[in-house]
Amino acid sequence: MLKDFARASRPDKAELKARTEAEQAKLAANQMRVKEAKVPVMVIFEGWGAASKGSALARVIKDMDPRFFEVATLDAKPTEEESRRPFLWRYMVEIPEAGQFKFFDTCWMEEVTYGRVRGELSDEDYEKRIDSINTAERQLVDNGYLVMKFFFHVSKKEQRRRLETLRDNPDTAWRVDKEDFWENDHYEDCMQVYDRYLRDTNRSSAPWYIIDARDRNWATLQVLEYLNMGIDVAIHNRDVAAPLRQNVFRLRKIPLLADIPLDKTMEDEEYHEELKRLRTRLDELHNVVYRKHVPVIIAYEGWDAAGKGGNIKRITSALDPRGYRVYPIASPEPHEKARHYLWRFWKRLPKSGHIAIFDRTWYGRVMVERLEGFCSENDWRRAYNEINEFEKELVDDGAVVIKFWVQIDQQTQLERFTDRQNTPEKQWKITEEDWRNREKWDEYEDAINEMLRKTNTSFAPWHVLESVDKHYARIKALRIVVEELEKACGR
Amino acid sequence: MLKDFARASRPDKAELKARTEAEQAKLAANQMRVKEAKVPVMVIFEGWGAASKGSALARVIKDMDPRFFEVATLDAKPTEEESRRPFLWRYMVEIPEAGQFKFFDTCWMEEVTYGRVRGELSDEDYEKRIDSINTAERQLVDNGYLVMKFFFHVSKKEQRRRLETLRDNPDTAWRVDKEDFWENDHYEDCMQVYDRYLRDTNRSSAPWYIIDARDRNWATLQVLEYLNMGIDVAIHNRDVAAPLRQNVFRLRKIPLLADIPLDKTMEDEEYHEELKRLRTRLDELHNVVYRKHVPVIIAYEGWDAAGKGGNIKRITSALDPRGYRVYPIASPEPHEKARHYLWRFWKRLPKSGHIAIFDRTWYGRVMVERLEGFCSENDWRRAYNEINEFEKELVDDGAVVIKFWVQIDQQTQLERFTDRQNTPEKQWKITEEDWRNREKWDEYEDAINEMLRKTNTSFAPWHVLESVDKHYARIKALRIVVEELEKACGR
Repeated sequence: MLKDFARASRPDKAELKARTEAEQAKLAANQMRVKEAKVPVMVIFEGWGAASKGSALARVIKDMDPRFFEVATLDAKPTEEESRRPFLWRYMVEIPEAGQFKFFDTCWMEEVTYGRVRGELSDEDYEKRIDSINTAERQLVDNGYLVMKFFFHVSKKEQRRRLETLRDNPDTAWRVDKEDFWENDHYEDCMQVYDRYLRDTNRSSAPWYIIDARDRNWATLQVLEYLNMGIDVAIHNRDVAAPLRQNVFRLRKIPLLADIPLDKTMEDEEYHEELKRLRTRLDELHNVVYRKHVPVIIAYEGWDAAGKGGNIKRITSALDPRGYRVYPIASPEPHEKARHYLWRFWKRLPKSGHIAIFDRTWYGRVMVERLEGFCSENDWRRAYNEINEFEKELVDDGAVVIKFWVQIDQQTQLERFTDRQNTPEKQWKITEEDWRNREKWDEYEDAINEMLRKTNTSFAPWHVLESVDKHYARIKALRIVVEELEKACGR
Repeated sequence: MLKDFARASRPDKAELKARTEAEQAKLAANQMRVKEAKVPVMVIFEGWGAASKGSALARVIKDMDPRFFEVATLDAKPTEEESRRPFLWRYMVEIPEAGQFKFFDTCWMEEVTYGRVRGELSDEDYEKRIDSINTAERQLVDNGYLVMKFFFHVSKKEQRRRLETLRDNPDTAWRVDKEDFWENDHYEDCMQVYDRYLRDTNRSSAPWYIIDARDRNWATLQVLEYLNMGIDVAIHNRDVAAPLRQNVFRLRKIPLLADIPLDKTMEDEEYHEELKRLRTRLDELHNVVYRKHVPVIIAYEGWDAAGKGGNIKRITSALDPRGYRVYPIASPEPHEKARHYLWRFWKRLPKSGHIAIFDRTWYGRVMVERLEGFCSENDWRRAYNEINEFEKELVDDGAVVIKFWVQIDQQTQLERFTDRQNTPEKQWKITEEDWRNREKWDEYEDAINEMLRKTNTSFAPWHVLESVDKHYARIKALRIVVEELEKACGR
C-alpha cells in the first residue's frame, strides 16, 4: 500500500487554509453529534518517525471541546507490568467511552512493526498478532465503535531532513533518538514491514488511510477530511446490525441442562479427606503458577443459590491471598456500560502468575442482558463468537481458563431461597430480584442451553458442577482446577 | 516501641486453636456487619522479613467471604510510573470501598523505612513523609475508614533461622533475597529506624499493634483479636463526628464575591494580540514542563454558564495534546461514592511533566454536596482543612496548583441561560438542574465565600476570573498560567 501510494495533489496555500478551517469547524460540530449519538471514536495515528503526527494531532483537535476527548500516548514497548498481560491488554483498557474521542499516538501497529523490523517477532507470532488486532478492531466496530486509522507517510529523504533539523536545534534535540535514525537507515526494510502490516489489517470494518505527510498542514487537512467523513458514516450507520459470523472454533458436545443427573452426592468422610488432599495440592500448584508466570482465570456462572460463593471459598482457601483476586460481578456502572461490554473484564484480567476468579462473568451478555433486553438481539447473538474470541485470546497468551456452570434444580433453589429468607444471617443473600429471576426459569434455561452449546470450545470448555450436594460440587471443582493447573505447569 | 515490647504469654496449643477458630468465625460474622454498616477497612501488615506476614494473612482471612476483600501487594520501591506521582499516590488509589476489606502486604511504612535504613531518605524528607502519612491516616479515619496497622516482630536470631530454612529448601529459596539477609545483618540499625517510625505514626486515629511473631499461629491469633476488636469499635462509632481541626495553613485575604467589580473588559484587538502572544509562550513552557517533569494541576470552579469551558479551551489550544488531559467532573459513580471523596481526584492526578485540568473539582464537597445534603455537616466542615492538606501534598511534591474561580453576576447568567435555551447547538449545555441551582444563588454565594476564604492558602491561592467579558477572563487565566509556569520552571 505504501509502495504504490498515489499522492493526491496538494491544494494551494489559500485553499488549504480555507478547507482546513472549514473541516475544523465541522469536526467541532461533529463532536457534539458524536456525543449525542453516543458513538465511541478511536482515532489511531501511526507512521514514520518525525512524520508530524504530533503537530497534526494538535491541529486536528484545535476546535474540539477538550472535555470530551482524550489522547493516549503509548510506547512501542510494553512495561514489565503490561507485558504480563495479553498483547491487546494495554490498548483495550484505553478504549473510549460512548460519545467520546480517544486519539492514540501510536497503537498496536507500532508494537508489532517495532518487533518485526528488529527481527524480534517470529512469523508465527506475527500472524497471531495480526489475528488479534483484526479481531479486536472488528469487535470494536461491531459494537458501535468508529475506528479510524491513519498512517503518516514521508519519503526517506524527507524523514532524514526532518530528523537532522530536529537534532541540530538544541530545543528539539531531545525529541529525536537513536531509534529514529535507525528507522531512517533501514527505511526500505521498514517500508516492507509497514506495507505488509497495512495490507494485513486493511479490513472494511476499519480501513487504513495513508496520509501524505510531506507537509504538516496538508497532512492535517487529509486527516480532518477522512475523520469527518468517517463520523458521518458512523452516525448514519449507528443502528445497523453487524453481521453474525459463522463459528470457526471447535466445539465440544455438552448435554442439555435437563439431561444432567443431579443425584450425585459425596459422603462426609470422603469430602473432608478429599478437601484436605486437594487443598494441599492446590497450594503447591499455586506456587508453581506464580513462579512460572501462568495467568489463571476461573469463571463461575450458575443459578442463584446454586452455591457459587461456597464453592469459590473452597478454592481460595487453598491459595495464598497475595496471589489471587475474586471479582463479584454486578450490573455495570455508567463508565462500564459506556464501553464495549468486555471492557470491564479486560480491566480485571490477572497478570501472569496470578489467579482471577469471577463470580458471574462476561456471559451475562447472553443471559441477563439478553433476557432483560439490556442489549439488542444482534448484540447477544454476536456475543457467542465474540466471547469465544476473547477466551481464545487469553488461552493463546498462555492463560488457564476454567469455566464452571453450577447446576441445581428448581426445587432445590426454592428450598435454599426459603432458607435464606428465614435465616437472619443469610437474608443479605436474597433479594426481590432473585424471586423475579426465578419466575423466568424456563427462559433462562433455554438461554443457558444455547450459551453452553455455543461456547463450549475445545480451548475453554464448560465444566458442569452438579451442586444439589454442595460437597460433591466443591470437590469436583477442586479436582478440575488441580487437574488444569497440573496440565499447565507440566506436573 | 519495639525495644520495650512486652510479649504476652502465648496460650497453650489447645487454647490457641480454640481461640483462633472462634476469632475466625467472629471475623466472618464481622465481615457481614462491616458490609452492612458500609465501613471501609484497611488492614496494614508491616514487619521484619520472614516474620510470617503472608501465612498469617492466609489464616486471618480463612473464613472470610473472598468476594468482599482484596489484597494489595506493594513493593518497597515505586515503579517509574508510580514515582512520577506524589509519594502517597500509589497507596491512595488502592483504598477499599465502603463495606469492603483491603489487606496491604506492606504499605507506606515499608517504602519509608526501606529508604531510611539505606540512608536514601534525608531527615527532612523523612519528616515530610511522616507528616503525609499521619495526615492520610487521619483523613481516612475521619472519613469513616477503619485503619488497622500490624507490625510483625521477630528477634534477630529467629529471623536468621527462618531465612536460612527458606534458603536451604529448593522449593522456597526463591522467596528469600539479598535484601532479607541485609536486613538481618543490620538488625539493630533497622530496629532503630522501625522503632522511630512506629512511634512517629502511633496516633490514636490509627494506633500500631505490635505482633509477637515468634510463631505463626500465635501471630495469627493476635491479629484476629485486635482486628475483631477494632471492627467492633468502628461499627459502634460509625456515626461519631470527627473533630474539626484548627487551620494551620497561612491564608491570604480574598474579597467577598459581592465586592468584586465585574466591569472589566478587553478590546478585540488587544484580546487577539494577547491570545497569540500568550499561546506561543505557553507552548514553549509546556515543553519545559515536560522536560523538567513538573506536574501541573489547573482547577476550574465557577457559576454555571460562567464560561469555564471556553476558558479551558484557550489554555488547551496552546498545549501539545499528548501532554495534558481535561477531566469534566460530574456526580460520582457508585464505586467513587463508596470511597473517600478525594479518591477520584487522587486517581486522576497527572504524572510529572503532564497537565491535568479539572472542570469542576474536589470543591464540590463544600458547594453542591454541602447544599444538597450529599454529605453531613461534619463532613463538609472538615473538608476545608482536608482539601488544604491535599493541595499541600501536591505542592510539596513539586506540583504547580492553579485554582480559578470564574465569576459572573446573576443577570449575566440569566442572559446566557436564555441564550443557550434558544440556540439549538447550545441546548445540550443547559439542564433543568441548572435552573434549580440558579434559584439557590444566595445559598451558593455564602458557601462559595466561605470556601474561598478558608482555602485561599499561600501555596495554592484562588484566582478570580471576572468573566462577564469572557475575553478578559481568558487572557487573565492565560497570564496567570504562564506566570505560574515561568516561576516553576525558573524562566
